[in-house]
Parts: sequence; C-alpha cells; structure tokens
Amino acid sequence: MSPFTNRRQDAVSALGERALIREIRRWLGDASPAAPFGIGDDCAVIPPTRRHQLVTTDPVIHGRHFDDSVPARAVGAKLLKRNLSDIAAMGGRPVAAVIALALAPETSTAWLRGFYLGLAATARKFRVKIVGGDITEAPAGFFGAFLTLHGESASAHVVTRTGAGRGDHLFVTGRLGGSLLGHHFNFTPRLAEGTWLAGRPEVAAMMDVSDGIANDVDALTPRNLVVALNESAIPISPAARLMARRSGRSPLAHALSDGEDYELLIVVKARSDLARLQRDWRRRFPRLPLSHIGRFAPLGRLPAGALDLASLRGYEHLR
Amino acid sequence: MSPFTNRRQDAVSALGERALIREIRRWLGDASPAAPFGIGDDCAVIPPTRRHQLVTTDPVIHGRHFDDSVPARAVGAKLLKRNLSDIAAMGGRPVAAVIALALAPETSTAWLRGFYLGLAATARKFRVKIVGGDITEAPAGFFGAFLTLHGESASAHVVTRTGAGRGDHLFVTGRLGGSLLGHHFNFTPRLAEGTWLAGRPEVAAMMDVSDGIANDVDALTPRNLVVALNESAIPISPAARLMARRSGRSPLAHALSDGEDYELLIVVKARSDLARLQRDWRRRFPRLPLSHIGRFAPLGRLPAGALDLASLRGYEHLR
Repeated sequence: MSPFTNRRQDAVSALGERALIREIRRWLGDASPAAPFGIGDDCAVIPPTRRHQLVTTDPVIHGRHFDDSVPARAVGAKLLKRNLSDIAAMGGRPVAAVIALALAPETSTAWLRGFYLGLAATARKFRVKIVGGDITEAPAGFFGAFLTLHGESASAHVVTRTGAGRGDHLFVTGRLGGSLLGHHFNFTPRLAEGTWLAGRPEVAAMMDVSDGIANDVDALTPRNLVVALNESAIPISPAARLMARRSGRSPLAHALSDGEDYELLIVVKARSDLARLQRDWRRRFPRLPLSHIGRFAPLGRLPAGALDLASLRGYEHLR
Repeated sequence: MSPFTNRRQDAVSALGERALIREIRRWLGDASPAAPFGIGDDCAVIPPTRRHQLVTTDPVIHGRHFDDSVPARAVGAKLLKRNLSDIAAMGGRPVAAVIALALAPETSTAWLRGFYLGLAATARKFRVKIVGGDITEAPAGFFGAFLTLHGESASAHVVTRTGAGRGDHLFVTGRLGGSLLGHHFNFTPRLAEGTWLAGRPEVAAMMDVSDGIANDVDALTPRNLVVALNESAIPISPAARLMARRSGRSPLAHALSDGEDYELLIVVKARSDLARLQRDWRRRFPRLPLSHIGRFAPLGRLPAGALDLASLRGYEHLR
C-alpha cells in the first residue's frame, strides 16, 4: 500500500494539523501518556534516573527504508525497532521516544493510522512511551519519520564499542545475512540479550550489526589490532543461502556483507571462561545461537586461514 | 545560496558517508564531545541528573522553513534555536542534542559546512553539546535536519502549559509580529528569562509563542475560561507595523497572528503583586519588555472592549 493518496478526502490535508494530532493520540492510545509526561506541552517531561541516559536517533524514509509493498504497520514497527537495537547494543533499557514526522499533504490518513498502530504495538511490547513529537509538511511525494529514543543504562556501567584488546574473542548472536528477504522487518531487537551481556564481567565491548559484519567490525577494532574471523564459525542464515542461489555470490559473502541483521556483535575478554559463558547463555537464551566467530590479533599477523574482510566490504551510504 | 549543487565534486556524494561524518565532527569542533558522550557509538551517553529531563524535537526543511536566500549558517542556528525556545518555555536548561539529517546526494558540501558552523556557534553560545545523530540519503531536492534537544528542569518543578485559573494574568516578553522580515532567523531563545520566570512563585504556566498569540493562547486556557486581551497593551514590533503598511491589515492583527515570535507567554496568578514582579523583571532584564496583556475570565463573560481572538486566528498547518 502506498503512503500517498490521490483522493483529497483521504489525505491528512483534509484533517489539518490539530485534528491529525488528536487522531495520532487516539491511535497511540496508552502507548502515549498525557502531558507533561507525554504529547501536548512545549517539551515532554521524563522523570530523573540514577543511571546514565542513552540517546539514539534513526528514521524511516519512503523509497529508502521501505516501499509500497510493505504494510504500514511493519514500517511503524521497524522505526522503533531500529532504534531499540541501538539501545540493546549499549546494554540499555528503553524509556521514551519522540517522533518528528515530515509528510506530504497527500499522505493517506489510513496508511498513517496503520503506521501508528504498528508503532504503538511495538512500543507496548517493549515498554516504551511515545512522549512527544512534531509534524511538518514536506514536499509532494515525501514521507519520513525521525524517531529519537531515550533509554537508560541497565547496569552501573555502559557497554560501548571501545574496549577490545589483543587476544579478545568476537561473538555474534543469531544468524546472519539475507535480511532483505524479510528479516529487516521481522527482526526482534536484542534487548534482553543486551542487558544480560552488559551484566557479564567477560564482555568488554558491544555493538549491533546494521551494515554487515564486514563493514561494522572496524568500529570495534583498535588501530593496532585486526580481526581474524573463523570462516566455519560464521552463523549463516537460511535467507543468506537463498540469496546466494540467486546472486551467484557465496552464502558467506551474504552473511558478512548484507545489512540490517540487527544482531549483537560482542567482544569477550581474552582470558574468559568461554565454556561457562556459553553454558550460561544457553540456559538463559536456549533458542538463540551465540557464535564464537573470531579473535583480535596484532596488526600484520593475520593467522593462516583467517578471512580477509576488505574484499567483502559492501555498500557505503551516500556513494 | 542553494543547499544543492550541480557539480558532482562539490556534493556530499563525492565524500561518501564515512568521510562526511569525519567532516561534520571537524565542523562541530568542541561543540561535539568524543564518544561515548558524543558521536561515534550506538547511542550517545548523557550523565544522570537529579532533575526532570525535558525533551523536544523540531526540524528545518528546505522549501518550508528556509529558502535559497537564507545563509546556511542562519539555517543551522535556527534549527537549534527553535528547540531552545521550547526548553525555555518549560523553564529548563539545555544539555545535549542529536540531529538526524535527510539529504539529497547533490547536497553541497560547502553549504552543509556553513549549516554546521552556524549550529556549532549557537551550541557553544547556549552550552549545548551535539552528542549524536544519523545521516540518511533522501530523494533529489530534499534537505531536512531533525533535531531532538534534551534539557533539564532548572528548578524543582517544571512549568507546563497547565495551571491558569480565573482572574489570572497573561504576560508576554518582547514585541510581537512581523517575524518574516528577519526576526524568525535573528531571534534569541528566552532561556535566561524562562529559568528566571520558572523560579518566581507568581508564575502558574508558560509556553513559547510560535504560531502567534491568537493561535497559541488556547493551549494555556482551561475549558471554562476565556482570555480577555487588553488591546492597548499588546507590544507591537516595528516589523509588524511595516508588514501592516504592505498588507493592508492592522499592525495589531500582525502582532497577534504572525508566527515565529519565539517570545514567552506567561500566566501569573491572580493575587500576585504585579508591580513587584515588573520591578524585579526590569532589574534583571532591563532591555526586554514584559507586558501585561490580558486576564483569564469565566467563559461567556468577556468584558466590554476585550479583543475577540477568533477573527484573528491565522494559518493552520497542513490545511
């Protein structure tokens, strides 16, 4: 379904801004508290917390992150889940979100309702409150929703991307690649896993995989180290194998360079008891694999058989 | 200057996303701290505060909030100032901002540099840190920057829009109307004034004037009351008088219904010592007028001579 309509009476411009805001509050229901803790004042008010605050922002834009084939509810859900994945990657808990909409006057009210119902259902599931936002008219044909999500650290320290050392291990959750076949709308942000991992003394650093490991792992790698990946340990998703049959590239290439996995990439300290970590993980998350996929080695000393990631780097945005 | 260029080598697409992010960090300079407190991790990390958190979001979009006649630096400054005005209206102090950019590949790198330099200068002036963001490619011809600003309450209680009672007084800072002639880029967000007012026991409610008093005052008015405005007390800006000469409407109509004043509209409790409030105000803010422009009366009992606002309601967005 297209976010836009040719019938004037079905478009948001037939409502006007005030009626539209009333509708949005109705669509959000109890996912949106009353002002001042929610929509309706100059700012949203969030109670103070003792822990560090986490803030992240990611949009969905028509023609870029979704097209007319995607149900409106899935678009609303994805907008929130993309941001939840960033909170998960810091070991945080989500708290509240604000949304800036930029929409063409011909945006369909029915489509927008679906979008907000999907957003609200996801907000309820992950206990996030939608506390405010802004609506601005955009040029014809444009729909973008820009969400900023606030969370708080679940433990005393925040797990960042910095902290990998020589000999440390690289782990990843789930299975990788082929996200375009559906996973990039169906994924579950790894919030429970992120807070659990952040509480483990073995974990030195963490991030979420959004552009494929081949592109993302650099952000975890200090300048004097290199990642030696163990090819046989990479968890390849069935979708990556299916994509490979169509593309002629290898399933491994898809697993390492397709984007939008939304899994967690975890650095585990060199001298950790890996067997114990794996045992505890399986007890807590029996259905989600945790794979030991590589180690950090000194620069220039890539072990024989280790994968060279440079050849697998994918797509760079804005190029 | 246009945000877009026809010369491929002058466009952000010639840089690619990674080089562009490096440039942006350079343009922001010390307005942007290092990760995890700034750009570069999955989330930005903001230290905990004892006071309530305030969150607001407002964008600037090409063709909507600015055109090619506006210098890029003024656009960047306005993006932050619009949001600062919302924090001021709650009596808060700004802390940190994140920015989601949606830009066409042909966006000019030189224009974007000006935008970020204007933003950074304003951030330094008002002690806001730019802690994170996102860059997404938008369709040709689109430039939008969506800022979410975080602040904290400056006093123990947050001043909301709710709290006006029968007999309460309405005050406004500054002079109103004609913002289109320049004020909507030149304005100063009333942060110092907002925190001072929030600390006064006389103040019951507050908001900023963004769509003109005739449109905005409803948000301060409880259902059982009406605002009786004192026509002769409305502070009309020189720009509103100039606009009136061009438009054929009255200067008063411009003062009440032009948007983007970014002044504060304040509800003062009925039994306050107004002379003392005015005296203390003049001592603290000798150069900015504080005008007593009306009172809240019971519905249906508008005093003789009081202005009827309904006839002056201006523009509604998305209609």
